[in-house]
Amino acid sequence: MSDISKIVLAYSGGLDTSIILKWLQQEYNAEVYAFIADVGQGEELQPATEKARMLGASDVFVEDLRETFVRDFVFPMFRANTIYEGEYLLGTSIARPLIAQYLVAAAHAVGADAIAHGATGKGNDQVRFELSAYALDPDIKIIAPWRQWQLNSRSALLDYATHHDIPIDSTPGGVPYSIDANLLHTSYEGGLLEDPQSSPEPTMWQRTIDPQKTPDIPQTITLSFDKGDPCAINDESLSPANILEHLNKLAGTHGIGRVDMVENRYVGMKSRGCYETPGGTLLLKAHRAMESLTLDRELAHLKDELMPRYAKLIYNGYWWSEERRALQQLIDYSQSNVAGTVTMKLYKANVEIIGRQSPNSLFDYRVASFEDDQGAYDQRDAEGFIKLNALRLRKSATAKK
Amino acid sequence: MSDISKIVLAYSGGLDTSIILKWLQQEYNAEVYAFIADVGQGEELQPATEKARMLGASDVFVEDLRETFVRDFVFPMFRANTIYEGEYLLGTSIARPLIAQYLVAAAHAVGADAIAHGATGKGNDQVRFELSAYALDPDIKIIAPWRQWQLNSRSALLDYATHHDIPIDSTPGGVPYSIDANLLHTSYEGGLLEDPQSSPEPTMWQRTIDPQKTPDIPQTITLSFDKGDPCAINDESLSPANILEHLNKLAGTHGIGRVDMVENRYVGMKSRGCYETPGGTLLLKAHRAMESLTLDRELAHLKDELMPRYAKLIYNGYWWSEERRALQQLIDYSQSNVAGTVTMKLYKANVEIIGRQSPNSLFDYRVASFEDDQGAYDQRDAEGFIKLNALRLRKSATAKK
Amino acid sequence: MSDISKIVLAYSGGLDTSIILKWLQQEYNAEVYAFIADVGQGEELQPATEKARMLGASDVFVEDLRETFVRDFVFPMFRANTIYEGEYLLGTSIARPLIAQYLVAAAHAVGADAIAHGATGKGNDQVRFELSAYALDPDIKIIAPWRQWQLNSRSALLDYATHHDIPIDSTPGGVPYSIDANLLHTSYEGGLLEDPQSSPEPTMWQRTIDPQKTPDIPQTITLSFDKGDPCAINDESLSPANILEHLNKLAGTHGIGRVDMVENRYVGMKSRGCYETPGGTLLLKAHRAMESLTLDRELAHLKDELMPRYAKLIYNGYWWSEERRALQQLIDYSQSNVAGTVTMKLYKANVEIIGRQSPNSLFDYRVASFEDDQGAYDQRDAEGFIKLNALRLRKSATAKK
Amino acid sequence: MSDISKIVLAYSGGLDTSIILKWLQQEYNAEVYAFIADVGQGEELQPATEKARMLGASDVFVEDLRETFVRDFVFPMFRANTIYEGEYLLGTSIARPLIAQYLVAAAHAVGADAIAHGATGKGNDQVRFELSAYALDPDIKIIAPWRQWQLNSRSALLDYATHHDIPIDSTPGGVPYSIDANLLHTSYEGGLLEDPQSSPEPTMWQRTIDPQKTPDIPQTITLSFDKGDPCAINDESLSPANILEHLNKLAGTHGIGRVDMVENRYVGMKSRGCYETPGGTLLLKAHRAMESLTLDRELAHLKDELMPRYAKLIYNGYWWSEERRALQQLIDYSQSNVAGTVTMKLYKANVEIIGRQSPNSLFDYRVASFEDDQGAYDQRDAEGFIKLNALRLRKSATAKK
Repeated sequence: MSDISKIVLAYSGGLDTSIILKWLQQEYNAEVYAFIADVGQGEELQPATEKARMLGASDVFVEDLRETFVRDFVFPMFRANTIYEGEYLLGTSIARPLIAQYLVAAAHAVGADAIAHGATGKGNDQVRFELSAYALDPDIKIIAPWRQWQLNSRSALLDYATHHDIPIDSTPGGVPYSIDANLLHTSYEGGLLEDPQSSPEPTMWQRTIDPQKTPDIPQTITLSFDKGDPCAINDESLSPANILEHLNKLAGTHGIGRVDMVENRYVGMKSRGCYETPGGTLLLKAHRAMESLTLDRELAHLKDELMPRYAKLIYNGYWWSEERRALQQLIDYSQSNVAGTVTMKLYKANVEIIGRQSPNSLFDYRVASFEDDQGAYDQRDAEGFIKLNALRLRKSATAKK
Repeated sequence: MSDISKIVLAYSGGLDTSIILKWLQQEYNAEVYAFIADVGQGEELQPATEKARMLGASDVFVEDLRETFVRDFVFPMFRANTIYEGEYLLGTSIARPLIAQYLVAAAHAVGADAIAHGATGKGNDQVRFELSAYALDPDIKIIAPWRQWQLNSRSALLDYATHHDIPIDSTPGGVPYSIDANLLHTSYEGGLLEDPQSSPEPTMWQRTIDPQKTPDIPQTITLSFDKGDPCAINDESLSPANILEHLNKLAGTHGIGRVDMVENRYVGMKSRGCYETPGGTLLLKAHRAMESLTLDRELAHLKDELMPRYAKLIYNGYWWSEERRALQQLIDYSQSNVAGTVTMKLYKANVEIIGRQSPNSLFDYRVASFEDDQGAYDQRDAEGFIKLNALRLRKSATAKK
Repeated sequence: MSDISKIVLAYSGGLDTSIILKWLQQEYNAEVYAFIADVGQGEELQPATEKARMLGASDVFVEDLRETFVRDFVFPMFRANTIYEGEYLLGTSIARPLIAQYLVAAAHAVGADAIAHGATGKGNDQVRFELSAYALDPDIKIIAPWRQWQLNSRSALLDYATHHDIPIDSTPGGVPYSIDANLLHTSYEGGLLEDPQSSPEPTMWQRTIDPQKTPDIPQTITLSFDKGDPCAINDESLSPANILEHLNKLAGTHGIGRVDMVENRYVGMKSRGCYETPGGTLLLKAHRAMESLTLDRELAHLKDELMPRYAKLIYNGYWWSEERRALQQLIDYSQSNVAGTVTMKLYKANVEIIGRQSPNSLFDYRVASFEDDQGAYDQRDAEGFIKLNALRLRKSATAKK
Repeated sequence: MSDISKIVLAYSGGLDTSIILKWLQQEYNAEVYAFIADVGQGEELQPATEKARMLGASDVFVEDLRETFVRDFVFPMFRANTIYEGEYLLGTSIARPLIAQYLVAAAHAVGADAIAHGATGKGNDQVRFELSAYALDPDIKIIAPWRQWQLNSRSALLDYATHHDIPIDSTPGGVPYSIDANLLHTSYEGGLLEDPQSSPEPTMWQRTIDPQKTPDIPQTITLSFDKGDPCAINDESLSPANILEHLNKLAGTHGIGRVDMVENRYVGMKSRGCYETPGGTLLLKAHRAMESLTLDRELAHLKDELMPRYAKLIYNGYWWSEERRALQQLIDYSQSNVAGTVTMKLYKANVEIIGRQSPNSLFDYRVASFEDDQGAYDQRDAEGFIKLNALRLRKSATAKK
């Protein structure tokens, strides 16, 4: 391994990547640079920066990726009404290709020989990081300490930390869940959640109020869209990151966006995850409502049929693949007329659509109406429509007789 | 039209089909039989029976189809987690092929020359009725008065009714919405709903309590599944219709299952619809949770990708088509191990999954765990997995350079 | 119908549209303009022009659409390797939206009230013409004489023609097949072909030599591609129409491109059709070979899965729909690196690929080789790849035990 | 590895598996059993049996799997008109899950601790063998010597063989291609084929006559189908294996079924392959023709859309997966009425369909005819059909204006 003398590590400031920061220096006798991505995880990054330096990082790079994250990753994904396995809004999955992109760029910037990350060998994140990195730099070297070292238990890690003067969080017994957070969501895995029959502790949830404790009065908001992306709340234009942040607050206040599910990991096993995606949950509902007024039927159905595959690509780490990019062309094309406003009522974990309007509306009161439409639609046309559609059904029935 | 001397009419007891009952007798100089399907619309059928006789029906057939409806139509559909356009649980769509089936059977039984229905020329129901009828009897004749007569306004209809002594509901101004109800749902269309920007009146909803007025205390229930179908509530085994009825009560009490949407009709226009599907909403959520534990990943994803197409087939009236039947084979196969129990918390329009267990569970605590797994999973395997999956991505990246 | 005083007719010069040209003048008492599209049907258009004038056309418009046809319709379609029902290369289907486009433009240019066409009420072409026209001008009026008039038999038509001095082809008994031709193909329907068990007469085929009479010596050619479209034959750059014409000659000489099939029409019935698509058959084979070297695996598979739907859209007449346009975005994106040359041997109705090369080739001799690859691929990676992919299969097997 | 004392090896009699047979005994100090599957590879199995014993096999099992292979694997696959990447008929892919099934059964029968195979770490066959084995016995141990040993070059293998008295084929320089054969096909990879721009030597092809040397007179045959499977040739009923064998002879005589392609392996790279599938090529064409007459349009289209995914599952080794089994339910359902006869002309690498008939034919001469149909089809229905299908297109066009 003597050919690796410079490494850039995706650093979070937590115990695991702190240990890795030290371990890499020892194992490879290499300079290790810490790369910290600000994707809105909601933590102070200054302490992490100092900690990295204290642990021997040759340098620390902090990138504020919040606007990029929402504009170029979250919004494009929501254009497809993306959900994995009916429940998961892909909050972690969608951040990984962005972090990998900037990690690779940092490696190029300092002339590093390799990148490293703190994802374990059992999860999806290792796949997302590494597929992204390989797709962006086919010759890159990747170090995944969790798949290499012998520190495979919590106590081994703590021993290592103690031995190397790495600060350990004071929580007795450690954090009971494995947590990931960014502007879109907070996720919880592991610990008590590993029994799918037992419920998480009420104290686990960090970003949404318990619905039993949310306001008794509903709140009404209006979300505006342009080209399929949200652009204003209650008529106030906001940047992508600011919109999502604002939606998070609104939705979180009303307990919106909790999910508790068993999902299928790309690496093969089923796993239990809990997710809080307050703003995203609201956005998904509103986006569908906006499309319901402005999107052609067959294009909408085509999108619905392709969505699970698109979601799977993102979940599995193929954001930077050719097939994801090609699907994005189709999805983005579909959004050109998705504009207007959606009005919603927020109340106790529910988002209720109470109105939608658009300058591009395809809804036509006269044609839809069961009342006299003054000739907008000739009901007699329906007979021919049905007759020709029935022709093959009748033929099959005759042949079966 | 002199070749039609006996007609069976799908009769509801309402004003429209009452007028049709009379109109058919006059227009065709034919014997008209009334067929009333009990699909759990929640009305007394005795008055409708008497009304039909009073209006000159040669005979009245009443079929209690509630168990058939749920067992052979609703449950098979829910095995696919079926939703149309992200929102609609297909409550009306799924009843039509059943009603058509028994209507055709009644026509055969009395040797009728034709069947008739009261669906308008602008809606989906005419298509569903007629495609079903043609698929079951390719030679059947179908009369759709709404596409033939001149009674195309509310006042023309009322004149006709008054003129022929047909009882008119006492509601001044008539019912403000077009309503359809069965064991699965109640739907509302037309009237005030024809403006997608205005909200329905709170009094419209018939089957669910306004979430602001539901109990402040959550209720926990357990739903058991066998072969993908619900079979017991809180360990009490119930027939299909009884299960759905019970779920409707539970969910309705907690305000669960309201939808307000703009949808795309098969006949071409967008239309606004409101739906209450209390038990179905709960069932969908529970079924997904049951599958999450027991269904193979790729089979689950295959189902997810095919679902929108399956939903569309049902929405468009193709229940009896070869392609729907073929898809059903795939779907039913997938359910063989979907068994166990799901525990849910019902609270103010929300269904929260709080536990799931199964004798066929594919969840493996040891493999999923981030803790030491004593060799259940070799993390080193992940490297090869990622490397080979990345191979083509790297090659593409190299070619692009 | 007194509101129609100016009509533009899609005119071919044949008997049917000649009768329509006269009939429209009489029936509507309107000025009728003849629009003749040159899509390479291989006929002199001057005689048709004169015939139209002779029959009373107010004016005649001739458009040479050959380059547009190939560049903007045929080539985009071939980028998807499009085949309908496994056999049909959509030669007629792909010309209709183009003709409709220019027909509508001609109607706008002369301020016509309506367009008219000569497609019958049983075929697909009426649908393709009219859906295209409505999609390009939602308010356009369309006249389809075959669905309106009483001239529904060959003898009624001939009587009408005789009565109105319309020249009748001298073929005794009329042409035995219904024929459509353009630069891409010639199609045959009707007449003797209406029995799927009987073979067409050898004399029917117009564009390909009977394989038993083609040269005994194979011919080798090289086709070059750029961005998925053919651009040169044997290194000679040619315009789109010229390339297709040249390929037609080469392939026709070797008897390539005959199809005899039973297909499913959009209007509901099965029908027998025979097709000659010499250049297109060769192009399809060559394009796939070009993609095999330059297209990413998963993108290629995505295209393969979407192709039948794309083919169906074109066959059914939805070229100008939003969903076709959206799919085209995806397809066109996929072609950015599809460039290079394919070498083929043409011999007795066969196209044999004998070589392919590309500056963007994704083929890597070292990685693919079963011989020693000096480390380009680590065979040990395969174990992890298989192990993780097998994980869910093993779990399912365990659960079934 | 001392826990492995009994191994069953998939043995072919060739050099590679002969070396493995010896290597396993040495490396594991284990009893090694040879399993030889007769899938119609066209070789005498007696010499292979004796060779295995001579090399120290504890016992040799020979299974005649020809009928099973065709009836339970080949025919079910052809029901879907399966082709991988537009060209490959999956001849090798479809045999692997069968061989794995019997290999696992043999392991169980002798109480072996592991199975072994001779597939390399770069190809698809290792994946197919191992995924099949794991799906059939989740606890099985698999030994893949090519991924473990150091014998990674041809000369290392020959040295080992010489050193251990293993007979080496007399071909100087060894066989120039890697060949696999069974009743369905013969495949060629490696050697000279590793340059996609160079053509294989004419002498490579073993099962089809060079089209330039085939008969100058076409041959006509009739193939009968029942439930989608071929059951008789020229009215003579034959068993599945006999039908395929007979078709191979007929087609091979006329040079039918050669493919030369670049394909995408599941393990990530592109590779060049040549295939001869004489009978299968003919069967595919005939099966499509049989379906064209008897299969409902939408069911046929559904199958076409699912086929690429089904083909990929088989290619990638997922025959025994839940998703392949579920798709098979759908496919098999579709074949219930696919019966009748197809007549074909075989001539110089071409299969030309010249007739098809069926007792279940959905073709209706009267409806399809452009001539007077005496009311079988009302052309006026087409107007309504088009109008309603155009409604959304017109609305979109209006909104865009």
